[in-house]
Amino acid sequence: MTDAEAKAALAELLAEYAERIDDDRLEDWLELFASECSYCVTPRENHDLGLPQPLILCENRAMLADRVVAYRNANIYNIHRDRHVVGLPLVRKGEDGAWSLAASFALYQTDSEGRTSLFVAGQYRAAAIFAAGRPLVRDMLVLLDTAAIPALLATPV
Amino acid sequence: MTDAEAKAALAELLAEYAERIDDDRLEDWLELFASECSYCVTPRENHDLGLPQPLILCENRAMLADRVVAYRNANIYNIHRDRHVVGLPLVRKGEDGAWSLAASFALYQTDSEGRTSLFVAGQYRAAAIFAAGRPLVRDMLVLLDTAAIPALLATPV
Amino acid sequence: MTDAEAKAALAELLAEYAERIDDDRLEDWLELFASECSYCVTPRENHDLGLPQPLILCENRAMLADRVVAYRNANIYNIHRDRHVVGLPLVRKGEDGAWSLAASFALYQTDSEGRTSLFVAGQYRAAAIFAAGRPLVRDMLVLLDTAAIPALLATPV
Repeated sequence: MTDAEAKAALAELLAEYAERIDDDRLEDWLELFASECSYCVTPRENHDLGLPQPLILCENRAMLADRVVAYRNANIYNIHRDRHVVGLPLVRKGEDGAWSLAASFALYQTDSEGRTSLFVAGQYRAAAIFAAGRPLVRDMLVLLDTAAIPALLATPV
Repeated sequence: MTDAEAKAALAELLAEYAERIDDDRLEDWLELFASECSYCVTPRENHDLGLPQPLILCENRAMLADRVVAYRNANIYNIHRDRHVVGLPLVRKGEDGAWSLAASFALYQTDSEGRTSLFVAGQYRAAAIFAAGRPLVRDMLVLLDTAAIPALLATPV
Repeated sequence: MTDAEAKAALAELLAEYAERIDDDRLEDWLELFASECSYCVTPRENHDLGLPQPLILCENRAMLADRVVAYRNANIYNIHRDRHVVGLPLVRKGEDGAWSLAASFALYQTDSEGRTSLFVAGQYRAAAIFAAGRPLVRDMLVLLDTAAIPALLATPV
């Protein structure tokens, strides 16, 4: 695989990541993560200030899967549909065989009356690897510009 | 043409599709469709529920051309300018020589006072073909998350 | 460098352009411009009507650098963080060895209370060149759909 092919595959990984959330295919979304992985959602301001407390932290895929199960069975939240618009990505080759990805996004939510509004804007910063030629998310850091989140953080960002 | 080249050309097709609408070059926008084509705009919720009634349905390019003529000459609507921001696409090779494209978008409208607001968010789901090496839209399905459209659907989405 | 490689590098240039502004790395952002360059921000409507007065015009990199120095040391403005979401680009090869880039964007601002709102939507229209294999912005025209800008234009768009 050339670097150009790897970069294209990693941009697709990010598009797939967003599409599976938007289509409420969260179990399939889990499949995009490596078995050893992390998922962290934190306000950008906290991150910039070095404040350690995230909004969500899953330190392996089992924790992430738990979150999906909780969402499916236990959580109470505002009914909505998600729509991610992910901007032009920056994909860079790392030294340890992993790749880094950065991409800004806007996440819209549509309520049960069909009204759409901006939920949060932010940036994905991910480390990704290839396993058997397939790109996988190893570490996903979701920086939220929007610290004043207008509703519950129910579905993944 | 390699698959990588085809994918790049198809992402450009989608960018061109949006740019021609935004630049009010609707007659040029028609040129991006195959002669045998369809164009359908429908609320995402209706689509998910299998409800058949779309907001707009053009079953060939002549119907689509008619719509542009009506817009130019007959329709009365709110004056505005469009701006599409199309997110990272997913381009997949189909079995019948066609390609499938999926991409989320946000469509902003700016009124005559220069105020911009979100008009609709949604997803393009298209089948595209190559004719004489040039990518063309064969079937365009526009899913609108925003069912509560805040103004007339005058210009194409 | 093949055309496909050049196009990928130019899409990255645009992503990098946005990321460096969003990360408040404005001095690094300047490095993305050729030494002979221009930077112009103008309402789209004025541009379409051929009205010559832009909102911002820097006719070389020294003027652009001045603007960053003024922003760092002298300007008074609303505290905010920027977030650009840049849509699918169109990259075309020009006749003079330069490339043209066009991409729509939405620029969000988040205030010190963590509330995010759309600041402006618009389109980048750039001419870019390669110097020593590295892509650089030669001329950047930023068309703003949003003429009614809700706050000061402090950070670059």
